[in-house]
Parts: sequence; structure tokens; C-alpha cells
Amino acid sequence: MGQLEHITGPQDLRGLGPAELEQLAREVRAFLVEHVSRTGGHLGPNLGAVELTIALHRVFDSPRDTIVWDTGHQAYVHKLLTGRADGFARLRQRGGLSGYPSRAESEHDVVENSHASTSLSWADGIAKADELLGHDDRTVVAVIGDGGLTGGMAWEALNGIAAADRPVVVVVNDNERSYAPTVGGLANHLATLRTTRGYERFLDWGKQVLGRTPVVGAPVYDALHGMKKGLKDVVAPQGLFEDLGLKYVGPVDGHDVEALEHALARAKAFRGPVIVHALTRKGLGYEPAEADEADRFHGIGAIDPLTGRSLAVKTTSWTSVFAEELRDVAEERPDVVGITAAMCIPVGLHLLQAAHPERVFDVGIAEQHAVTSAAGMAYRGLHPVVAVYATFLNRAFDQLLMDVALHRAGVTFVLDRAGVTGDDGASHNGMWDLSLLSVVPGARVAAPRDAVTLQEELREALDVDDAPTVLRFPKGPVPGALPALERRGGVDVLRRDGDEDVLLVAVGPMAGLCLEVADRLADQGVGATVVDPRWVLPVAEEVVALAARHRLVVSVEDGGRAGGVGSVLARALRDAGVGTPLRDYGIPQRFLEHAKRAEVLEEVGLTAQEVSRQVVEAVAGLDAEPTGAPLHD
Amino acid sequence: MGQLEHITGPQDLRGLGPAELEQLAREVRAFLVEHVSRTGGHLGPNLGAVELTIALHRVFDSPRDTIVWDTGHQAYVHKLLTGRADGFARLRQRGGLSGYPSRAESEHDVVENSHASTSLSWADGIAKADELLGHDDRTVVAVIGDGGLTGGMAWEALNGIAAADRPVVVVVNDNERSYAPTVGGLANHLATLRTTRGYERFLDWGKQVLGRTPVVGAPVYDALHGMKKGLKDVVAPQGLFEDLGLKYVGPVDGHDVEALEHALARAKAFRGPVIVHALTRKGLGYEPAEADEADRFHGIGAIDPLTGRSLAVKTTSWTSVFAEELRDVAEERPDVVGITAAMCIPVGLHLLQAAHPERVFDVGIAEQHAVTSAAGMAYRGLHPVVAVYATFLNRAFDQLLMDVALHRAGVTFVLDRAGVTGDDGASHNGMWDLSLLSVVPGARVAAPRDAVTLQEELREALDVDDAPTVLRFPKGPVPGALPALERRGGVDVLRRDGDEDVLLVAVGPMAGLCLEVADRLADQGVGATVVDPRWVLPVAEEVVALAARHRLVVSVEDGGRAGGVGSVLARALRDAGVGTPLRDYGIPQRFLEHAKRAEVLEEVGLTAQEVSRQVVEAVAGLDAEPTGAPLHD
Repeated sequence: MGQLEHITGPQDLRGLGPAELEQLAREVRAFLVEHVSRTGGHLGPNLGAVELTIALHRVFDSPRDTIVWDTGHQAYVHKLLTGRADGFARLRQRGGLSGYPSRAESEHDVVENSHASTSLSWADGIAKADELLGHDDRTVVAVIGDGGLTGGMAWEALNGIAAADRPVVVVVNDNERSYAPTVGGLANHLATLRTTRGYERFLDWGKQVLGRTPVVGAPVYDALHGMKKGLKDVVAPQGLFEDLGLKYVGPVDGHDVEALEHALARAKAFRGPVIVHALTRKGLGYEPAEADEADRFHGIGAIDPLTGRSLAVKTTSWTSVFAEELRDVAEERPDVVGITAAMCIPVGLHLLQAAHPERVFDVGIAEQHAVTSAAGMAYRGLHPVVAVYATFLNRAFDQLLMDVALHRAGVTFVLDRAGVTGDDGASHNGMWDLSLLSVVPGARVAAPRDAVTLQEELREALDVDDAPTVLRFPKGPVPGALPALERRGGVDVLRRDGDEDVLLVAVGPMAGLCLEVADRLADQGVGATVVDPRWVLPVAEEVVALAARHRLVVSVEDGGRAGGVGSVLARALRDAGVGTPLRDYGIPQRFLEHAKRAEVLEEVGLTAQEVSRQVVEAVAGLDAEPTGAPLHD
Repeated sequence: MGQLEHITGPQDLRGLGPAELEQLAREVRAFLVEHVSRTGGHLGPNLGAVELTIALHRVFDSPRDTIVWDTGHQAYVHKLLTGRADGFARLRQRGGLSGYPSRAESEHDVVENSHASTSLSWADGIAKADELLGHDDRTVVAVIGDGGLTGGMAWEALNGIAAADRPVVVVVNDNERSYAPTVGGLANHLATLRTTRGYERFLDWGKQVLGRTPVVGAPVYDALHGMKKGLKDVVAPQGLFEDLGLKYVGPVDGHDVEALEHALARAKAFRGPVIVHALTRKGLGYEPAEADEADRFHGIGAIDPLTGRSLAVKTTSWTSVFAEELRDVAEERPDVVGITAAMCIPVGLHLLQAAHPERVFDVGIAEQHAVTSAAGMAYRGLHPVVAVYATFLNRAFDQLLMDVALHRAGVTFVLDRAGVTGDDGASHNGMWDLSLLSVVPGARVAAPRDAVTLQEELREALDVDDAPTVLRFPKGPVPGALPALERRGGVDVLRRDGDEDVLLVAVGPMAGLCLEVADRLADQGVGATVVDPRWVLPVAEEVVALAARHRLVVSVEDGGRAGGVGSVLARALRDAGVGTPLRDYGIPQRFLEHAKRAEVLEEVGLTAQEVSRQVVEAVAGLDAEPTGAPLHD
């Protein structure tokens, strides 16, 4: 008889006994492997958080007590236990269950943001509000990975939480890694805490002697607890967290529901800031994930559940083209080094690392430090390549501006997953980078359209030693080669019809779409020139000159319209006194719901069909008076 | 005979004896009070860093060894000791000495950025480069305040520095405050370290017994040192820093040059990551600064050096209008709370704090945590006001976007020092906020033009509970009232000439300039309408409608042109099919040298004279063909 099917909410967990809980954990794991192998999603982190989530929902009373999940991709079990099993059939699909917590889905969900290290600040804010509002009997729980703790804002929050006496329970889900093994002094300290488990061993001995773990409140437990407490001061290192002012409970076996419940119950009863240090194993219970050192089961596409093998057709990704070219150029250029914020493989620094381990620096989930330490390296004459997902550059805007650009440091940023990524939802779309970069004095941004231009532009970027340079490219397979007719003033002309009606300015991977638009325009008798400026910021003089010779300029970018390439081009035309009207296509400035990339692009009108339809209309209207009616979002 | 006049560089410090060093320290303080009282500048932090700077330059060999100053306003003494005494006559003036380190001034200067908490990342990057390049005999020194350590990126860096074995010396200049007293668990831990000074007391005893402090390398020192080392493990708490993996040296009296030299020499000899904990007093040696609890001598304008009283004419500042209105509205609205990143008084939260201390939260120099904890408070139904200098909002862009805007949290941001601030140089100008905010879905931004609109718009902002709202205003005195003729669709019409030639769209404090431009246009027979949209982002429909009725639109803002209000207005006109040409005036997208605000505005063409001259020219050219020549930057 299955347990999982009876769980409609946390209340249904309360009456289960140890054997039933074990059964439930097994069923949850089987459910996750079965469903996530079909839909894709974050498998590894959730397999590691099964018992922890069960224990949390048995000890705390959500939503009265608030449970905040850091980088919400570890919240699948939470979703299952709060009545959303049915949704997993359409996980991360349009209109289906989000891959992250979602307030629209459940009152048990709070934080939808999937950027790391935020949960402690959320918890601190909620606890401060509870105190002011007189909600004295609530507890706020933040669940954060050891990786998440390397992010600076987690430390800012810990500094505040520790000095107050509000009931905040920080559960450190310590699996010794984020994507990559967690690095730094903090990781070393956690390792010390893990390996000096005197009192836990003592508790194990107690368990064996007494048959099973005693229950909170029972005399035997209290006696054991008292002995443990005394022992703990002798054998357990308190260290860093207690120095800050936090009570430390742990380490506790994160796959032992009862041990977890004891630890969490103690933390809850304390009514002040407590760290609960839980040791878990990412991917636990799924053989292919447990066996994989490279942690490829952190986030997956569709896989064969039995073998763990990907079901996707093998293609060459933008990332792998970059990874190989960087490794090759680094052979010729000993000054080139790589920096990653805990994502060496996903951002493609692993090939350089394999060749020259001393030249790749993993700084933890610490984008600010990544960028400013790059400025320091450039000061001494190295040329650092900071490789990061486009959406995470947001975290280091000030450092890019004030440490790199102000100091004219030759640092190259390689932004992977730029543009619409789709199924990871609002916070993973790389739609902010062009807008931010257009603000940064001196920054030069290239958007390759294919493998060859990626290789070329990477080398060009590495030749600039007095300004930040940026390459941005999307997730997924790199398209086939799109050769240029000619290169003029640094600008690649991809098509020229002769009739200079419309100038199509393609940003990077939008080149294919623009060529298709040109085809459709030709069918309607409208002549087009298609250019790829290659370096899209600042605007090339050649683009302005070409714009002056056409009747309409159309820019297409895979990024937010506000302050994007189209906006900057419009300003360049105004400043040059070029009166050619411009239509700038890009992503409207709103948060995009999760769906497939193609579905999102269609929804926002970034298809050849829709763009060409509007352009034909605009060309037809060029001689007429403006109507005042908006034609697109 | 003076010592200071003989110091042309660090090498001149080496031969001085204890009495001469004491004399030098006295002269440096007198010099600072004399000069900074005249020019204005950062007085308090530098008076506290005199002996520390002398000791650093005696122990380390700059520029071979690199000394990085966190928030460079503590680098005045460093400037004096590296041959720049003459420059202090024109400190922070156009063409004169920068108020921060400047590579153009000296080979001893590295980091020009004045945003806090960056120095450890710079040091880590430089040390990594030194290691790769084989510079084995160099040491990198970062000097950071205890306040700066509360910033998240300092922790990110510390995490990395601690786990490596590169020769990085982190000097914590612990004066127990940034602007405000330092808060949080870290501050408490530093206090513990300060007050458990067993081995330092032992050293003091040794000094007394031996007459004076022994010299490094001498047998007596080594003996003492050995005893101290043994004792230290018993009496001195090691705590947090050593748990991370850093060697801890201290605490040491930051006003005792010899004690400092011993500590720094030990740190230098260690050839690994070391914290040197130096205790200093901000403002030491200047009675008015030492006596001032509110730390008004941190940064000053011109003062009477004898009394410390400001020589400026007393005026009402934008900040004080905000401070009073917030206090008043908070009496009616118990849900309103304030959050500051260690700058309660400068950002005007002190009046609310005085009235309701439990409703103002100082989170340390931790803008990321400030913003995300605000989202947490809003989740529970409070309405937080995050009050921060405009330039520091950069630090929390991702949190504003992903935690506040994505979650539609009703959080109000009050950005002080928006626009050109001038004498603090490139990194203090608040010229980035409008560009960033235009990217954030749902964000609404108001720019008050006078005291009354500030009061109104603050209350309007506090009434929005489903989106981030922002008020931005500049440094300095609030101008006299600029009443509107009428309010239409939320837009204030300040002047209407009847002839609808030019629509002037004034952003906040640019209203005065726009009215003056209108006067000058009228003199040339050009009719103008001047509007203040009040809420400048998103663009009001009324502004678009008015634009359609004029021949030329001119926007004027005190912010960067890229992605600013002018850019957004241009996009709104494009989208609405309004063909009226636009000229958008703002700050060109480059880093501005320090100078007075008026000088900077003139340099970038933001004067009524220059704008009106260009607008008259543009109006004259409206019937002619575009020339292609750029008219302005």
C-alpha cells in the first residue's frame, strides 16, 4: 500500500510511524526519478532532500511557520508533500508546475527567485515583521546549501540574524557541493564540523543500546540529551557560527528522519537564531546520480530512467564551442585565465581547467568576488575570462562598473544562457545583460551568430586590454554556419537585396530569424539588407551609415527592449541626426512564465512570421501619417 | 624642525626613530585638520589611520608590495606619505587631488572605487596573479574597516583567501563603526576579540619591564614572542577568522606605531593569509571629531578648524524634507518601517528612528540584504522604505529585480544623492539608477522637483503595495517651490506658452533648468510647454499625448543617457507611432572626474544656456534635411 498517494498536505505526515516514513521516502524517490526523467528538471538536489523535507514538514507548521527554500530547485519534495503530485506530469512546461516555488501554486511557497543565497535575507525580513506584528509563536526556517552559504548576501544576512534574538532556523543542507564541490574556508570549516562528530557518535551508541532513537520529551531522551549537551562542549567544535552569535545544532544525518526531527525540534524550541547542520548526499537513492562525479544529474533533460543516459540527440552547443576555443587560445596566451562562480563545467571552463588547472579559479557562488578579483588579476597583467550565466551577471553589476570599467581593466565576460532560456522560468532568462552593459562606460559587447564568429570574437575580446569585453550567446545547440557576403567597418553583411528599403540589424543568434524575415519581405516586394554588427555595443559607425541609406531600420535582439541594442541604436541615430525610423524588436520588459524557448519567443512576437508581418505593415505606412496606435508591445 | 616636509615617499620613513615618528604623526594630524577644514573631505577616517599608514609604509615596500585601501577615503595619509602634500590645497576640486586613490596621481594607488568591501577581492586577484607570474616575494595588503567587513563581497573574498596560502595580509582597521556603529554578529565577535586581550596585556608588561618594545629579530623579542605565542593559544580567542583558515594577529593598538610594525612584520613573514586586527579611534587627535557621537566628521564640508562648526549657510536639504515627512507619515501608518545600510543619519532615517527605534533597521554595509529583507517584510504586510545613496543601489540590482519586483513586493526605495554629486568623483555620482530602474518590470520612479512634490510623491509611493516604488533626489539644498499651472493625467504642467513648438520634459530637479530654457526660447520666439511628469518611469500617457502635439520633444535628466528617462520616452514614442523628434539631454555615459556639481553639469552641457542654444538650432533645422552631424554628446 503506497504512502505518497495519501499525502494531500503536511498534516497527513504527522501520524506516520518510522516504517511508514521510510516507505514514503522510497516512494518519493521513485516518483521523482520516474517523472523528472521524463520532463527534465533538477533531480540530484531533490533526491538529496527527501528526508529533510519530510522532517521539516513534521516539525514545523507551514504556512504558519514559514519555510524558505534557497535556490528553489530543491523544493520538488516540498511540492509533492503539499499536494502537487499531479502537477509533475507537466513540470516546467507551459501552464504546468514551475521548477521553483510559486506563490500562485501554493500557500506553502514564498520565494520564487532561483538565484542563490537569498533565503536568509528573506527569513530575516519575515522574522523582523513577525516580531513587529506580534506573531510571537511563529518560526521562520531557511533551507540553504553549503554552496549557497558562499554567496556574500548569505553572510550579510547571517551577520544580522546572529545578532538578534528572533526565532530563525537556518538549515544548512550540506552535500559538500553546489554544482561543483563547495570551495573555500567555509567549506573547510564545515568539513571540520562534519568530521569531529564526537557527540553524534555518542548518540549512535545510545541508539544501539536503547534499540531506537528516543522520543523528545521522554525521560530517556532527556537524559541522553543532557549527557550529550555536556559532552558536546568538549568534543564538538563550535567555531564560526557560534562566534557570530548563532546556536549550532549538528551535524545531523540528513537521511535519518528521526535524527533530523530531534535536531529541528531543538532548534524550534530555542526561540532564537539557530543553525542546523544536516549532512546529505545529492542524488541519493538513484544509482546513476550517485555514481556521477561531475554532478550531471543536478539539472537534467529527459533521460532513460534506468541508465541515466540523455535521450536528447547529441548536438554541438555554444558552450562547447567556447570551451574548446578558450582551451586552444590559452595555449598561445599564458596570460589568459578563467574564473567561475561554482559552475566550471556548465560554463565551459573545464577544458582549460583540465589542461591548466592552476589557471582556472572557482570562487564559489560569489559573482561579486569573481568580477572584482578579475580586476585585480588584470591589474597585474593577466587577462581573466569570467564565464557566467547571463542572468547571474546581475549580481556583479556594481563590480563590473566600478572595479572593471572604471579601472579600464581588460577582463572578458562570457555570458552563457543569454536570451530566453524558457523552462527554468522568470529568474533564469538571460534578458537583462544587454540593458546593463549599455550603461557601462567603455564596455564592448559581441554577440556571435554561429560557431565561427564565436571563435573570432573571443579572440578579438582577448586582444582588448583596456576595457571590459563581453561575449553573449544562448543555451542550446549552435546553428550551422551563416557566412557573410562581406565585412565592412567591422560589420558583417549577410544579405543585400539591392533595394534599400529595410535594414535588418541582427543581434547574434537572431541572424537566422532576420534572414528568414528578409525572405518573407522579398516575397512581398520589400528589399532588405541584413547585417550582423558582431560587436553590438557600442553601435558601429557603419550601422549608422547604413541606416541613413535605408527607409526603415529594424533591430532584433534576444534581450529586454529597455536599454537594449535597439534602444542604443535609436540613440545613436538621434545623435547622428539620422531620421530613418526604427522598429526595435526584443523581449518586452516583463517577467516571463516558464515554457519552452520557442513557445516564449512566439508569445513575445519574436518569430520571423510576426516580425515580417509588422515590418511589411510599417513599410506600407511610411508615406502615411503616423496613426498614434501602437503596433507592438 | 618639521618631519612631514621631508617625506617625499615611503623610503623617507624608514630611517625615523620613535620620537620622530610621533612628531610626524602629530604633524600629519595638524596638516589634515588645517587643509580638510578648508576644502572639505573625509576627516574622521583619516585622523584614525595616521599611525597605521605610517607603519604600513615602513613594513611593506610599496608599490612592489601592493597596498589596497577599502573605501579609499581613508587614504589621505597615504597620499601625504607618498609625496602629494602639495595637492591638498585643491583636494576634490577640479583638476586637483582626488578624494580617493587615483592611479593617475601615483604608482602607489591601485583602487579608485569608493564603494565599500571591495579591497579583499582586489587583493585576492592580485595575489593570484603574483603566484602565477612567479612574484614569490611580494605581499598584498588590504586595509578594510570593520564596517566594510559586513559587506557580502568581503566575505566572498575572505572565504577564498582563507582557503589558499598566498601572502595576503588583511588589516582590519577596527574603529567600531562605518558611518554608524558597526552592527551584527561580526561586530560582536570583534568586540569579544577586543576585550579578551590577555596576551597584548602581557606584551605591555614586557614593554614596561624592558623599557621599550623589542625589535623583530632581536633575541629578546623572539623570546617574548615565543612566550606570547604559547600564551595566546590559552588566553586569546581565535574564533571565526581562524575557523575560516586565516591566521589571526591582534588585537593591536592602532595608534602605537611600534606595536603595529611588529604585528605587520609578523604577518608579512608568515607568507600566507593573515588578519591583523588593529584598534583605532576615528577622529583621533581632533577634539570636535572625538567628541561627536553622530560621527559628523566622517565627511565634512568646509569647517572652522577650531570649533568644527560648518561654515556653510544653513539650508533645508532634500534629505531633511524626506526625513521629516517619513517620520510624519509613519505616525499614521504603523506598517511603514525604514531600512538603512549603515547610513541612518545621512539618508534621513534618524527622525523615524528617534520616534520609533524598533521600526528602523540598520543592516550594516549590506545593500543586498537590505533589499531582500525588505521583500521579506513586505511579504508579511509591512511597507519598508529602503533609504540609500543612489550609487549604492547598484549593489542590489539583482535583489531589486528578483526579490522585490518579481514578487511584486510593495517596497519603496528612497535614493539620495541621485544625479551629479561632483566632488566625490566618479564612483559617487548617482547617474546609474534611472537606467537600471527602467529595466525592472513594474518599477515606478518619481523624481520630485521641490519639497512639496517630494512629500506628495513619498505618500503616493507608500500607497503602492504591489510593486517597487522609487523616489530619487539630489544632494544639497531643496530649491524654492515650483508650483504647477495644472495637473493633467498625473503630469504637472509648469508653463504653457500657447505656441506648441517645444515640449520640455523635466526630470525632478531639472525643472528649474527647463523653465529657464523656456525663458530663453521665448526670447528667440520659440514657444514651449514645460511639464514635470512627477512619476518619470514608466512614461505617462499624457506625456506621449502632449509630445504628439508639439514639433520637438526635449527631455532633461540628471542621470546617464543610456536607458534613462529620455531613452524610455523615445521608445514610448516609437511604440505609439508618434513621429515627433526627440532630443534627450542627460549625462553622457562616461566616468566623471571630481569637480563641483555646477562645474560637472557645465562640462557635460547640462546648463540652460547650452540646452536652449541647441534646441533653438534644432527647431530651426526641423524643416531642413537632417545633416548627419551629431549636435551633442
